[in-house]
Formats: sequence, C-alpha cells, structure tokens
Amino acid sequence: MSLDAVLTKLDSDLDTALERLMALLAIPSISTDPAYKADCAKAAEVLVADLASIGFDASARPTPGHPMVVAHGGPEDGPHLLFYGHYDVQPVDPLSLWTQPPFEPIIEDGPDGKIIRARGASDDKGQLMTFIEACRAWVAVNGALPCRITIFLEGEEESGSPSLVPFLKENKEELSCDLALICDTGLFDAETPAVTTMLRGLLGQEITITGPDRDLHSGGYGGPAANPIRVLARVIASLHDETGRVTVPGFYDGVPELSQEMRDQWQGLGFDPEAFLGAVGLSEPAGERGRSVLEMIWSRPTCEVNGISGGYEGDGFKTVLPSKASAKISFRLVGTQDPIAIRESFQEMVREMLPRDCEVSFHDHGASPASVMATDNPAFEQARQALSDEWPKEAAFIGAGGSIPVAGYFKTVLDMDSMLIGFGKDDDLIHSPNEKYDLTSFHRGMRSWARVLSAVTGKE
Amino acid sequence: MSLDAVLTKLDSDLDTALERLMALLAIPSISTDPAYKADCAKAAEVLVADLASIGFDASARPTPGHPMVVAHGGPEDGPHLLFYGHYDVQPVDPLSLWTQPPFEPIIEDGPDGKIIRARGASDDKGQLMTFIEACRAWVAVNGALPCRITIFLEGEEESGSPSLVPFLKENKEELSCDLALICDTGLFDAETPAVTTMLRGLLGQEITITGPDRDLHSGGYGGPAANPIRVLARVIASLHDETGRVTVPGFYDGVPELSQEMRDQWQGLGFDPEAFLGAVGLSEPAGERGRSVLEMIWSRPTCEVNGISGGYEGDGFKTVLPSKASAKISFRLVGTQDPIAIRESFQEMVREMLPRDCEVSFHDHGASPASVMATDNPAFEQARQALSDEWPKEAAFIGAGGSIPVAGYFKTVLDMDSMLIGFGKDDDLIHSPNEKYDLTSFHRGMRSWARVLSAVTGKE
Repeated sequence: MSLDAVLTKLDSDLDTALERLMALLAIPSISTDPAYKADCAKAAEVLVADLASIGFDASARPTPGHPMVVAHGGPEDGPHLLFYGHYDVQPVDPLSLWTQPPFEPIIEDGPDGKIIRARGASDDKGQLMTFIEACRAWVAVNGALPCRITIFLEGEEESGSPSLVPFLKENKEELSCDLALICDTGLFDAETPAVTTMLRGLLGQEITITGPDRDLHSGGYGGPAANPIRVLARVIASLHDETGRVTVPGFYDGVPELSQEMRDQWQGLGFDPEAFLGAVGLSEPAGERGRSVLEMIWSRPTCEVNGISGGYEGDGFKTVLPSKASAKISFRLVGTQDPIAIRESFQEMVREMLPRDCEVSFHDHGASPASVMATDNPAFEQARQALSDEWPKEAAFIGAGGSIPVAGYFKTVLDMDSMLIGFGKDDDLIHSPNEKYDLTSFHRGMRSWARVLSAVTGKE
Repeated sequence: MSLDAVLTKLDSDLDTALERLMALLAIPSISTDPAYKADCAKAAEVLVADLASIGFDASARPTPGHPMVVAHGGPEDGPHLLFYGHYDVQPVDPLSLWTQPPFEPIIEDGPDGKIIRARGASDDKGQLMTFIEACRAWVAVNGALPCRITIFLEGEEESGSPSLVPFLKENKEELSCDLALICDTGLFDAETPAVTTMLRGLLGQEITITGPDRDLHSGGYGGPAANPIRVLARVIASLHDETGRVTVPGFYDGVPELSQEMRDQWQGLGFDPEAFLGAVGLSEPAGERGRSVLEMIWSRPTCEVNGISGGYEGDGFKTVLPSKASAKISFRLVGTQDPIAIRESFQEMVREMLPRDCEVSFHDHGASPASVMATDNPAFEQARQALSDEWPKEAAFIGAGGSIPVAGYFKTVLDMDSMLIGFGKDDDLIHSPNEKYDLTSFHRGMRSWARVLSAVTGKE
C-alpha cells in the first residue's frame, strides 16, 4: 500500500481523467425535463461501464424515474463506505446567456487557472468523478480498493429525488454501510477545504391560483373580476414580515439558535460578506434583520420564490385578465423544522388569503428536513486532517445553504451518518449559465479523496 | 334613394358578405408580434382592394409599424363622415384552448343561432365589415354613397397604436371630418343596441426589476440576496388598498362621480351583475368596495396586472434565485385622469419601494385618456333612433370598460367627435381563445349602419 504512489498516479493520469469527465459532461442529463429522459439513462450507462472497468460490480437500476447507479467493490476488511453523487444536471435556460453550448465542454483559462466549462462541470459530474478517479488510481497502484466501497449515483437530485426514498427502503440492506461520503458541496474558499456538517432541508411547492374560468379582456372585466396574478402577488408579499422573517404559522418551530462556539468558529473563517454579495452585483444583505450573512445561508431558514408566471408574457402588450397564475416557492429548512407540518401550514395560510372566487392547487416538489452531522465520529477528524494535508490551508467544519436531502435520508432510512466533502467554489455558477469547475478543484479533489480513503482506513 | 332597397340588398347578399369576411379572418394579422408583420400588410392590401371595388379611392399608407388603410368616396354634399375600425387582432395564446385553428374561420351553431368562429371575428374584422357591407349595398342600390365618407382602418390597435397620433397629425386635413363613426364596441345585450358615450383610457406599463446580476442558486444565496420576484410581488400587492382602491398617489385626480341621472339610466337597463360574473365562473365583484359592477366597468378607473414572469417557469422545479422579474401592468382611466401624470407617479412609487440593490426599468405601452362624448350633437339621437328601428329593443347610451383611444385622439388631434356603435356581445370571447361573432350581429350590424347613414344624412 502506498498513498504517495496513488497521488503520483493521479497526477500522471490527469489528462485521461479529464477526457473521461468531458465525455460525461457532453451528455445532457437534465432530470427535471422529460425530454432528456434518454440522456439521463445514457449518463447512467456510461458510469456503469466506467465503474465496471475499475472492477466494480456495477449496474443501472431502474426506478419510476431515472435509473440509480449502484456499484460494489473492494475487500471485505475495514470500514464499508458508501459514496454518493448525482449524474443529473440542472436545466440550462436561459441558453442565450451561455458563452458556449452547455453540453460541449471545454477547458478555458479562468481567473485562477484552468477551468472546465459545461453544465454539470461542478454540480455534480466533476465532483463525483473526483472520487471515481481516486478509486481507479488506488486499484491501479495497489491492485484493490483500500476497503469495501459501494458507489451510489442518483439521477434525480435536481428534480426533487422522487425515487430516492423508495429505492433506499427497497435496498436497505444492500446500501446500509458504516459511513456515507457525499461529494456535492464546496470548499470554504479557494485555499480552504471543508467538511460540511450542517445542511439545510428543502420544501418545494408549486402553487396555481385560478380566478375566472377563462382569460378575459381587462377592459371588459377589469375591476369586478378577481385577477389571479394580483392574488398571487399578495400571497407572495405576505410570506415575509418587515424584518425579513417568514410569516407561515409555526415556521420557526425547531429552529435552533447557533451555539456561541460555532458562531466564534465561523467568525474566525474570515468570511467577507461584502465581497460575497459584491460578486453577484449586490451590496447589502436582504434577509432576516440582525443575522450575519453566513448565518442566513448556513443556519437560518428561508422562503424564496424560484419562478412565477401568468397572463401574457410575450413581446408587446395584451390587455388580458388571466384565468390562472402560478409560482414555484421553496423553503430552506434548518434544525428540526418539520417539512410536512410547514407544508400544511403554508397551504392553509394560502387558502385563508384567497377571495371566495379564487381556487388554489398545490404541486409538491420535495420535502426534506435539514441534516446536522454527528461530528464526534472519528472519521470526521481524520478526514479534516487528510484535507488539511492536501490544501494550502487547514480544513474547517462548515454549514451549507444548499440542500442535500440524501444526507437526511441516509440517516432516517439507512441509519447511516454522512461526511460531506466537496471541492466546488462559490463562483462555479452552478444552476446558472456558464457553470464551470476549476481544474484545481478536480485535481486536488481526486488527491483529497485518496488521502481521505487512506486516513479513514489507516492504509498509508 | 331607397333605404328599404338597401336593406333588402344586404339580406340577399349575406352569403357573399360572409365569404368576404371569412377571407379577411383567415389572415393572422397579429400586430403585437413582429412575426406577423407580413400578414398585417396583407390584411391591409385585401381591404384596399375591396374598398376600391366599391368605388373608394383607397390606399395602404406606410407607417413605422403596420400600414393604415385610407379610402375616400361619396358625393360632396351632406356631412363628411369618417369611419374607423382596425384590421389587426390579438395574439391567440394559449393555442391549446382553441377548439379549432384561430385563423381557419368557420360558421357553427351557437346557443343563440349561427356564429362565426375565428380570432378577430368580433374584434374587429367582423365589426368593420358591417360598415363596408352597408356602403357596398348603398352604392349597388343607389349608385353612390349617401354622403362623403372616409374610411380609416388601423393595424396597430391591439398593440398600443404607436403610429396613430403621428399619422393623424401628418394627415390632419385629409382626416378631419364632421363626425367619426367607430365600430369597435358592443350591444348592451342581445336585443338592445347601444351608442357608447363613455370610454375608459388606457395606460400600459411593463416593469422589469433586476436584483443580482445573474441567476443564483437559491440554496447558496437564498436569504441574503434580494429576490426580484419577491420585490415585484410586493410592488403589485401594494397597488391596491383593502377597499380595492388604487394607491398610486394622485390616481383619483380627475375621476368624476357619476351623475344621478346617468346612474338612474344605467339602473334601468336591467343589468344582472350575478349573471355577468357567473358567465365567467365568478360569483362576487372583486373591485372597489361600494361600487356597482356597471360603475366598476364603465365609470371607475382600475389597475390590473396583465402578465407576470420571472425565474424558472418550465416543468418541474429549479432552485434558482433569478436575476430579473417583470410584469405588464395596465391602468384604465376615466374622466379627466392624466395618463402622463399617473405614469410618473406610478414610476416614482415603484422606485421608492425598491431595496437599494434592485433596479427597475419601465417600458411604455400606450397612454391614452378617457373619452366622454358630446351627446348633444343631434347625430347621436338620430343614430339612437335608427338603431331602435332595427333591433327588438330601444337603443341606449352606455359606457364601455375597454379603451378605444382613437376616439380621444380624434378629439384632441382632429377636433372631431366620435359616435361609437358596435354589435359585439359579452360572450364573444374577444382577446380569449375561441373568439366568435354572432351571425345576427353581423347581419343586423350591416343593416344598422345602412339605417344610421340614412338617418344622419336625411336620405331615406
């Protein structure tokens, strides 16, 4: 066994690793849009073939939605680790803002060195390949993986993971390991790696308000006829009070105050809120009054509107009073907030605001609680040390604003803790046009996983 | 001269008149969408050719937008009348709700007899053809028109009439007549014709709010980053108070109270607000508290949202915090409300509501004041009597909720009064899928114009 030889192998094989990533990035596996169903299946098949080539017993397992990739490998001794990533990606609209086609990946010069530009480069194809490349190098150098490893890749992470919990329940025995490794998070900054120990949950709700039973002329009916856009605007406007707090009754049940210890640790990170907001054209925090920006993102719940539509949206003007208006609304959850209770409370609040002539329908898009990791598991400190060995600065335990519901489900369904380690950067433009992944993230990411596997198995 | 012979001619030529209308309806002259520019030009050319065939000196006159059709005919004696209609039509979305293609007109059985189904059947191609058919029959029977007539057909009425005022100004002498006849309004009910004497004005404003300079991940930025959809919703929700009044400062300057005489006359019409709202799936008036439905539509100003969009609007869910959100907002104006002053006040109100990190841009879509006709011109009473002779019930002077800005411009630019007579019905679905025009409206409409021409020229 030789960690150094594995690291050397990763360095020397970087170009072929990049070729494999580029091939995966070229597949438009947009899970939320049914038009890309075959592409999602293709991405799964490519990964199955790649894992089989490393020696994994790999298969694409059907679900009512997109397939799950499951692969088993490694010797029976040592811990049994489960690695999770997702091969599906976000939609690419607005396509006009991309500097190149989103599924024709290229390597470019970025402000901090080379970058890989494509949808999914960072979220999550580039990230998941860091682990697979570490496994490949380990097998190439040492003839076998350092321990028993199950790789589990989902294809519905960007569309609410509808098949995930049923799949975990149906395959509980096969997927229950000693610890899960999840690669879908970021570095703290370009030099500081991180183990994410707090993740917000996510509750998604699409609401559609119907007023008149047809589109009307706003001259002939404007005034007496209920306008569903106006009703929807009133609903949205009422979701926050003047201090930025969410007004859904019971919303803050289960929201813990940050401990002074964690608050001190976060303050020591040197986070610059002005630079963070300035990077996206903003100058002042818009959220809850009296909370720091890091708190707002890592440890406070939110309610945001992700999309809205109704009436005439084309060029020019149409004096229509529309029959329907709809919005996609999401809640980020922390602590022990109960997504089901909040969904019910939200729906009741909306119903109570409706005029008698309006109806509302709700469409659910996921409901996952927050995850707070048990960092007293020694693997967390071992991994933190391994990361610190690879990167210029010492690794930190941090929170994350995005939701990675799978960590919660691993705990509730499989009774398995998760260790979240990722190499994304804040400027990766995930979910936006022109997504990218730094070549440094990819390269040091593989090396980081080799070090983490060594640290938690004791095989140096 | 013989009015009776003209009416008989209109009856016997009904089928060929319908064929001419169907050909015009088959042209998709959607003025607001640049994709249909050639179709608008074609509709104008078809009308020019038809008017020339009746003996008019007709031409399609270019503008920066769609052409104006101008045609002169008739002897020099008697009043010089100008007839106005528009050959452009509304967009057809959502296309999926049409029971047949909107530009493949057909004649069907409706609840009250035959109907002509197509986009523009009622608004305004069917209506404008009632006048042209009356002219055709008059010429066929009497060898000439009963007086000097200028026909003026616009192609931008459904897109804010951007070329109208410049065109009126440039051709002021040619277009200034003794009285304008406008056919773009409705019957009071199926049996009661009407002369519309009050028209609401229209101010259209498209507003776009920008927050962050790019689309963001709502997990990574939700909380501290300003969300333009939420800001827009707050703006829209603040445009009305709890009693349904518009909150834009100064909005009610120039809004007159309805006279007791007019109020009594309207109450005598037997209008049934429950049936009016019930026909579109509504049960209670949503507008200003303490106002009747007829007041809300005919004599009170409104603010409505005609369209809204922002963020992810496709299938599924995307956890995006969007950079931009926009809405199309319109104000219906009455009395002497000043559209320019209201536009400025509205824009200032919106700017004052914005957080520091958001910007707003405005796009203007028309700004026309209300029109209140001088009904002491004897032609109004002559026309009212002529209409009463044609229809089962006596004609009424009424208001109209929709805006017909041209009437205001005829007054302000050409110093010409307008008499608004039309034959549309409330269930014509104008601006909606499945627009139709009753065959009775078309047939009695032509006969009505023949009678009105006879009454105002004294040629029986």
